[in-house]
Amino acid sequence: MSTAQTPIPFSRDALEQVLKRRFFFAPSFEIYGGVSGLYDYGPPGCALQANVVDTWRKHFILEEDMLEVDCSMLTPHEVLKTSGHVDKFADWMCRDLKTGEIFRADHLVEEVLEARLKGDKAARGQDVSEVEEDEDKKKRKKKVKEIKNVKLDDEVVKEYETILNQIDGFSGPQLGELITKYNITNPATGGPLEQPVEFNLMFETAIGPSGQLKGYLRPETAQGQFLNFSKLLDFNNEKMPFASASIGKSFRNEISPRAGLLRVREFLMAEIEHYVDPEDKNHPRFDEIKDVKLKFLPKSVQEAGSNELKEVSVGDAVESGMVDNQTLGYFLARIYKFLLKIGVDKNRLRFRQHLSNEMAHYAADCWDAELQTSYGWIECVGCADRSAYDLSVHAARTNEKLVVRKALDAPVTVEKFEVDIEKKKFGPTFRKDAGKVQDWLLARTQCELEDLSKELKDNAKIVFKVDGIEQEVELDETFVKIGKVTRTEHIREFTPNVIEPSFGIGRIIYSIFEHQFWARPEDTDRSVLSLPPLVAPTKVLLVPLSSNAELQPMVKRVTNFLRKEQIPFKVDDSSTSIGKRYSRNDELGTPFGITIDFDSIKDDSVTLRERDSTKQVRGSFEDVIRAIKEITYNGVSWAEGTAKLTPFESQSSE
Amino acid sequence: MSTAQTPIPFSRDALEQVLKRRFFFAPSFEIYGGVSGLYDYGPPGCALQANVVDTWRKHFILEEDMLEVDCSMLTPHEVLKTSGHVDKFADWMCRDLKTGEIFRADHLVEEVLEARLKGDKAARGQDVSEVEEDEDKKKRKKKVKEIKNVKLDDEVVKEYETILNQIDGFSGPQLGELITKYNITNPATGGPLEQPVEFNLMFETAIGPSGQLKGYLRPETAQGQFLNFSKLLDFNNEKMPFASASIGKSFRNEISPRAGLLRVREFLMAEIEHYVDPEDKNHPRFDEIKDVKLKFLPKSVQEAGSNELKEVSVGDAVESGMVDNQTLGYFLARIYKFLLKIGVDKNRLRFRQHLSNEMAHYAADCWDAELQTSYGWIECVGCADRSAYDLSVHAARTNEKLVVRKALDAPVTVEKFEVDIEKKKFGPTFRKDAGKVQDWLLARTQCELEDLSKELKDNAKIVFKVDGIEQEVELDETFVKIGKVTRTEHIREFTPNVIEPSFGIGRIIYSIFEHQFWARPEDTDRSVLSLPPLVAPTKVLLVPLSSNAELQPMVKRVTNFLRKEQIPFKVDDSSTSIGKRYSRNDELGTPFGITIDFDSIKDDSVTLRERDSTKQVRGSFEDVIRAIKEITYNGVSWAEGTAKLTPFESQSSE
Repeated sequence: MSTAQTPIPFSRDALEQVLKRRFFFAPSFEIYGGVSGLYDYGPPGCALQANVVDTWRKHFILEEDMLEVDCSMLTPHEVLKTSGHVDKFADWMCRDLKTGEIFRADHLVEEVLEARLKGDKAARGQDVSEVEEDEDKKKRKKKVKEIKNVKLDDEVVKEYETILNQIDGFSGPQLGELITKYNITNPATGGPLEQPVEFNLMFETAIGPSGQLKGYLRPETAQGQFLNFSKLLDFNNEKMPFASASIGKSFRNEISPRAGLLRVREFLMAEIEHYVDPEDKNHPRFDEIKDVKLKFLPKSVQEAGSNELKEVSVGDAVESGMVDNQTLGYFLARIYKFLLKIGVDKNRLRFRQHLSNEMAHYAADCWDAELQTSYGWIECVGCADRSAYDLSVHAARTNEKLVVRKALDAPVTVEKFEVDIEKKKFGPTFRKDAGKVQDWLLARTQCELEDLSKELKDNAKIVFKVDGIEQEVELDETFVKIGKVTRTEHIREFTPNVIEPSFGIGRIIYSIFEHQFWARPEDTDRSVLSLPPLVAPTKVLLVPLSSNAELQPMVKRVTNFLRKEQIPFKVDDSSTSIGKRYSRNDELGTPFGITIDFDSIKDDSVTLRERDSTKQVRGSFEDVIRAIKEITYNGVSWAEGTAKLTPFESQSSE
Repeated sequence: MSTAQTPIPFSRDALEQVLKRRFFFAPSFEIYGGVSGLYDYGPPGCALQANVVDTWRKHFILEEDMLEVDCSMLTPHEVLKTSGHVDKFADWMCRDLKTGEIFRADHLVEEVLEARLKGDKAARGQDVSEVEEDEDKKKRKKKVKEIKNVKLDDEVVKEYETILNQIDGFSGPQLGELITKYNITNPATGGPLEQPVEFNLMFETAIGPSGQLKGYLRPETAQGQFLNFSKLLDFNNEKMPFASASIGKSFRNEISPRAGLLRVREFLMAEIEHYVDPEDKNHPRFDEIKDVKLKFLPKSVQEAGSNELKEVSVGDAVESGMVDNQTLGYFLARIYKFLLKIGVDKNRLRFRQHLSNEMAHYAADCWDAELQTSYGWIECVGCADRSAYDLSVHAARTNEKLVVRKALDAPVTVEKFEVDIEKKKFGPTFRKDAGKVQDWLLARTQCELEDLSKELKDNAKIVFKVDGIEQEVELDETFVKIGKVTRTEHIREFTPNVIEPSFGIGRIIYSIFEHQFWARPEDTDRSVLSLPPLVAPTKVLLVPLSSNAELQPMVKRVTNFLRKEQIPFKVDDSSTSIGKRYSRNDELGTPFGITIDFDSIKDDSVTLRERDSTKQVRGSFEDVIRAIKEITYNGVSWAEGTAKLTPFESQSSE
């Protein structure tokens, strides 16, 4: 609703002032000077967050019978080593050895080249003012000591521009080369920088008193869900497909967080792991959403250097192969519906496909729901097909089977390689390592067994290395036989694939703030936050016309009824004008106001005011509160919900 | 309800088996061998926890308009240094230097002395079998290598018994003396142990890439609330008293966690910080609860060596001075009501007052709500009057005023000491330290100023140390004047006191499991978990009599209605008997069952079954579901809620 009503240009500074003044959020530990990347949510922010989470739970978990779990945040090293986070969850940083300052390498290259391009423009006499110079950019620019107005060669300008367009794609060594080639130094001092080194973004700690069990704060909620896969499958009576879900905090030790709530070190995530048969990624409820039209930015378009959005139905997107499978498409549509429900502007929402070099090697396809803000397009929800990667690596590491066993309609005959171990020979030969050698043999894939079988035939022995045994292991046919056998199978055993929609709740909430913040043209000093009633922190502001004691019993009756109906409300019985009291609450996103006046005492009638339109209607307080309940919780429109109430012209000017 | 129905002796093993089999919870990272003290909640545990939290939020936050905040878990060192956690949040541990094993000192002394007493009893030919030998005790006992049947001197027995009664009260050095005196060694090897050293129970980590900002995972949610005090007071329009509240995970790096969900390293807390005027700790709603009777265990009774409970009304408890003030009493009653609402057995709940040596030096009074379990009486809710301690220390450390300013009814004249600083002399003399010296002077209390004033008069100078300045500071009267002045004040400025009810959600949930777990005498193999409908993970089990296709449309209609009414339900359409399907869900705590049979198709009627009584009634599915809703969410009794439905005799035997 707000978009049509925004004649005033959006100001991020104005929004941030309101959010801080009304304590939606504030830097954590502010009286101690704060710690960057850490924020506290105050009462309205906290209520908004709780309502978003509650909506998420109903929209996804309850609607689709997902299995919610709540897993530990403290995670031992071994789990995150297996998942790949210990090795790969890192950013590149450069250190100035002299000052001790640390820079995130990609951000540094970006800032310096941008500053040089600006200096070039100025030198060429072009306009270098920006539409909106935000706080964040101002701060960053301070780092770049002086933007010298130096004209660059045309060729160099082109090179810089190309680099800036690809800045997210460089590896650490490549960034190092750029730093050397373009002589990028500490922007504040001009001092030289070390080559980029990897910095792991997980917070490390030690579990237990000996300090020997290294652990991390989880970087995502997903791993806890994967590790419980077998228990969840069992809980679901072995039925497939099914999904688990988790809502909780995760952590990321950003090198130098900025951009407010968009890049923080501790954040609330809501993640779904939907397990499917890799041979059948159709979704039983796909028909319900196939006609939903989304704005897609597929990788083919991006690779062609364009940002043009394709608006097609999810059905068509899956059919044409743009979106890999039905389940992925189903979730994209469900994500879209969820985001709209909680206040995202659909005109500032797009689904961008990951480029091949952005995606993890195991991922089959990945789409981000991106929301447009004053910081650009921000990834707020990821929706990836992670294939069988996670379950496979944990299974391999722990020797626990993380598989689904499915009865076949008809038995099938399969030929496969099998290992036949002469157990009693292993003990005397390998002693304490006997188990390890046997486990190694039993864990081989079909391809590996085929190779080993050939080796055994050709050389009359096989030689291999086993983790944890120093010497090579050598076995002949008296120890092991490897051959092809034919079996009739009644059961198909497979590792399910995982489709993972993953929500950054804080980023979504910040984007909604930007999408729903505006000011009335006639009163530009006061702003309005058009949060949907469903997620607004407080639903109703109750304003007695005056503090006259005569009105008190009526206030009490309305208050009791609101409480009984469990509608979050606030009373404002200050002596300020009604209009001012309302506008103070417009800023907090309170969608409805109820005025109690002297007529109320006579006939129980009250006035109901809607925040965005400032329309007013009148009726008995019970009817008014029922209308509020219908509009807030049952998705009924204002027109429909208030159809039986009487239109009302305000007596007091706002 | 269950208590009266428990003819079968409670078995903790049986309960734990059910809880694990039905995935209420499980050790985290179990396929990696687990990490002690870390647990994951599976779907029913997670839903139960969410319902308990939701009930808490409504019972406390909504009912009393508390200001909920959500603060960072990562906390910089300085904050927790000020709060006292860096220095005092610790347990004592002993190390066996040879084996590297670590023991919690108090637990070790307790186990060894208990084992020796048992050996003594055996040597004396007394019965040493225990009523219930639980897993936990079995494990602990394994540690004690061999319980030698050695008779002890009568005197020694007495000494051991006295020590065991006071085991929670010993300091580390005292424990060290006991270890030396009684020759306590590593129970497994007999090897010598180091003297106890303090082990801080906070998980440490480094924030940011330089590793220089030391931080911890918060040990409680309280500090975040205190640091936001001024913003919250402002948000509350400066009105007092008011409360903030927070629900979130906290962390405690236990030396050797045991006792399942009762002692864990990561746990969910719900904490309230209620700010009051230290001169008026009355509570405006005290009258509403003053007649609630609680079972108290005051410190006077404990000090007399007794455990006898005093059952008196909260009103009497406050009037007699047993409970320090109305606000504390008010919260004890509210805590009581909350615990009963979510399923605590009131006969296994007591309020125990802290002994003087248990309480922090600043606390005015402190009561724990303790729940009786097979592990003994467990502290599940603490309710402390923390006086002005927290706000004072943070204010002193940060030089931020954390105070309330209250307009006085009539101005008062006060005499007080004031400092008069000759600012322009400080700069030249102290250079960069000038500000520090001035701040130090301005931060002195009245008493300190009185002393300084005397010192200045007597010696013509004052000499003092300022943190961060190496040399002593010396000032004469040309720098500073300190004297008594008379002022008329219109405002009273004070640091509020804090009453802090603090809930360990996991401990409460585990206690409810114990309080509500039982078995029907006629079917002891199957258990029942009598969770109140309000918090039960699933409210309704829907069971079609058979899988006959004819019943399907009816199942669909009932399902849709349940979903519309937002009642969590599950369908069990397996081919098992109705009775078996019900009893499987009794174990999950599902309070209601709806049976759809062939009569249902004719007239929309269904059978409703109650879990604990197995009573059945019949009516239209809409009436039945409305009854369920009333009973579950509006506190209506079964008799009242089903008054309009028809009693029904089961056709199928359970």
